[in-house]
Amino acid sequence: MRLHDLELSGNCYKVRLFAALAQIPIERVAVDFMGGEHQRLPFLELNPWGEIPVLVDGERVVRDSQAILVYLAAQYADEAWLPRDPAGLAEVVHWLSRAANEVQHGPNAARLVDKFGYCLDKAKALRRSARLLGLLDGHLAQRSWLACERPTVADCAVFPYVALAPEGGVAHEPYPHVRQWIERVKALPRFVSMQGI
Amino acid sequence: MRLHDLELSGNCYKVRLFAALAQIPIERVAVDFMGGEHQRLPFLELNPWGEIPVLVDGERVVRDSQAILVYLAAQYADEAWLPRDPAGLAEVVHWLSRAANEVQHGPNAARLVDKFGYCLDKAKALRRSARLLGLLDGHLAQRSWLACERPTVADCAVFPYVALAPEGGVAHEPYPHVRQWIERVKALPRFVSMQGI
Repeated sequence: MRLHDLELSGNCYKVRLFAALAQIPIERVAVDFMGGEHQRLPFLELNPWGEIPVLVDGERVVRDSQAILVYLAAQYADEAWLPRDPAGLAEVVHWLSRAANEVQHGPNAARLVDKFGYCLDKAKALRRSARLLGLLDGHLAQRSWLACERPTVADCAVFPYVALAPEGGVAHEPYPHVRQWIERVKALPRFVSMQGI
Repeated sequence: MRLHDLELSGNCYKVRLFAALAQIPIERVAVDFMGGEHQRLPFLELNPWGEIPVLVDGERVVRDSQAILVYLAAQYADEAWLPRDPAGLAEVVHWLSRAANEVQHGPNAARLVDKFGYCLDKAKALRRSARLLGLLDGHLAQRSWLACERPTVADCAVFPYVALAPEGGVAHEPYPHVRQWIERVKALPRFVSMQGI
């Protein structure tokens, strides 16, 4: 099973993190992102969206980091990581939506500006980050994990760019419950890190 | 089962559409969005994110339109609407991510500017819409439905703001396969529409 991967991408790290936690062996294939490999053939045949990560499992190609987490969890991991009961599954999907939207356009966007020089609206990314982290802090004030009172793929989806937020000028200090949750994730058995965390 | 709802919201319409297609009875509770009801108590107790729709099923509160689709499908609908096999579920989740991100920040954002006077970057919303619709058109050139070769909650999540795109100045004309898919969705048994579609 191959993961088309970039070391510095939080979206790729989501998958590396979950695979490590759930003990799923994956082979990493480095994509030359700075050289634009993801925007050219043959990569575009693998993913017309021109995005990493992409997971290839035999004949199966899975695109989108949230979808890859769900695929790996459903196919290869203990059910605890992805509940199948309707209410539990919906709780997890709620956080997958936040990962795809608020996290992406908040702390991820701020980091893209500061660390990679992307031309994005930094002030808006900071406002979105503050809103997200405030709501996340309130959520985590009453519980240890994002969904279902245990670690799930929801935590793996949201953790990377929240943990990397200081690289975009977004401080963790005002959010004590987020800080405690970050430490909780880091203390999980088989946790792996990435540069910047 | 109550849906806290706004007639003109495409996110609320996702849920109304799916509930109609899957014959799930829901009671609609109108939220005074223009009056800011969603940003005040007691609504904020129901959803701290201050967003609609919210589904209340007995003691259970489900937030986020994608999560509500998954909850309703898993709890009350035929499995065809939400596959449980890992590959099928991942295909659907891929499109739920697109609904939460690219659809939201593309055609939805453009419509928010034109129809509701939101102060957003219209040019960026149009660029994002063109990219999304181009990729969607390529995807639908080879298949009839977004995932699993049948109608699923993925279609219900993506359809509303794509169908409403002309209200944000995004034309359907350049995208023949998207146009055919829109007609295919409209022809589903028990389809319900909303103003602007």
